[in-house]
Amino acid sequence: MSDSAKRGLLIVVSGPAGSGKGTVLGSLLEDSEYRYSISATTRAPRPGEVDGVNYHYLTRQEFEARIKAGAMLEYTEYCGNYYGTPKKEAEAVLAGGCNLLLEIEVEGARNVKRAYPEAVLIMLLPPSFAVQEARLRGRGTETEEKIRERLARTREEVPCIGDYDYVIYNRDGRADEAVADIRAIVRAETCAIARNKNAAEDYFR
Amino acid sequence: MSDSAKRGLLIVVSGPAGSGKGTVLGSLLEDSEYRYSISATTRAPRPGEVDGVNYHYLTRQEFEARIKAGAMLEYTEYCGNYYGTPKKEAEAVLAGGCNLLLEIEVEGARNVKRAYPEAVLIMLLPPSFAVQEARLRGRGTETEEKIRERLARTREEVPCIGDYDYVIYNRDGRADEAVADIRAIVRAETCAIARNKNAAEDYFR
Repeated sequence: MSDSAKRGLLIVVSGPAGSGKGTVLGSLLEDSEYRYSISATTRAPRPGEVDGVNYHYLTRQEFEARIKAGAMLEYTEYCGNYYGTPKKEAEAVLAGGCNLLLEIEVEGARNVKRAYPEAVLIMLLPPSFAVQEARLRGRGTETEEKIRERLARTREEVPCIGDYDYVIYNRDGRADEAVADIRAIVRAETCAIARNKNAAEDYFR
Repeated sequence: MSDSAKRGLLIVVSGPAGSGKGTVLGSLLEDSEYRYSISATTRAPRPGEVDGVNYHYLTRQEFEARIKAGAMLEYTEYCGNYYGTPKKEAEAVLAGGCNLLLEIEVEGARNVKRAYPEAVLIMLLPPSFAVQEARLRGRGTETEEKIRERLARTREEVPCIGDYDYVIYNRDGRADEAVADIRAIVRAETCAIARNKNAAEDYFR
């Protein structure tokens, strides 16, 4: 039972538009035990974005070379650009004992679990599809087409919940409860026998 | 996601002598979400003990009839007497949405898991065998023979930890951390996909 040598947990959080991922993860990140890793992307930096701070900006060729070399923990292509998590970044966070939060979609989450069976997959949901729809429309910032697209995607993704380890809900005005759920999950997982295979041996040492 | 219909969790806690089970479980029981069930026993009531409060006192014949009828959730024979958990008692606690705490030994814990795969098995340990030994000797209330017997039993039981779901530690003066571990485990288990098989279906309802 050597706390000093404790690695952080790799935590994947997925959630449909309107689940409030940003709020929940933002709140966790205020705690120094939780970290994002800086993603890599082939997208051009936007004004004000800084290489190595917002993203690691790579050319398409560089990104594909890293995929080939197995240097990406996960990646996805979206609107013609690659986005991904460099293994080195992730490993540094975990080795430092911090929990690494990855906010990724269902397909990416599955890929992470395949490569890292020890990853913890959490699906964050609004209380119901009806509430999700109301939230998206309530924002008043998106076109009807965009909203329908997001809802259609939700209908595809939520049924994949069986590939996740946990489901948590972000109720209206209760993001703190979802944050507490994630903290409890991390604390419990740290106590899981599967993560403490030498517990008996260590006990008698 | 109907909280109202939520059943409690069946939580088995095992721990060697000196692990501080009494303190940890006593602290949890101050919270109305956690309950003990009243055990049944064939042991004679001690002065001051009340039937239906301390134990359900049964004759040997009655106890064995209940075992035969499958009415005991778990039971064990110790020093010539039966001790066990009546299923009816346990079911009432769980159906009422409270978490049922069972403090039982390794063999009993395995039996519970066999009959109730949804049970959560937690091993509570002192920080190390050396600390356990120091605690037992420090009590100054037990004979050397008794202490050796308890330590020998620990050497047999702790290696069975692989049959448990979680391991938690009761560090000197930090029983509150062990209590918080159990609370986190219960919260996390409540979010486990395995316990929320209808999550996707319910979401779109």
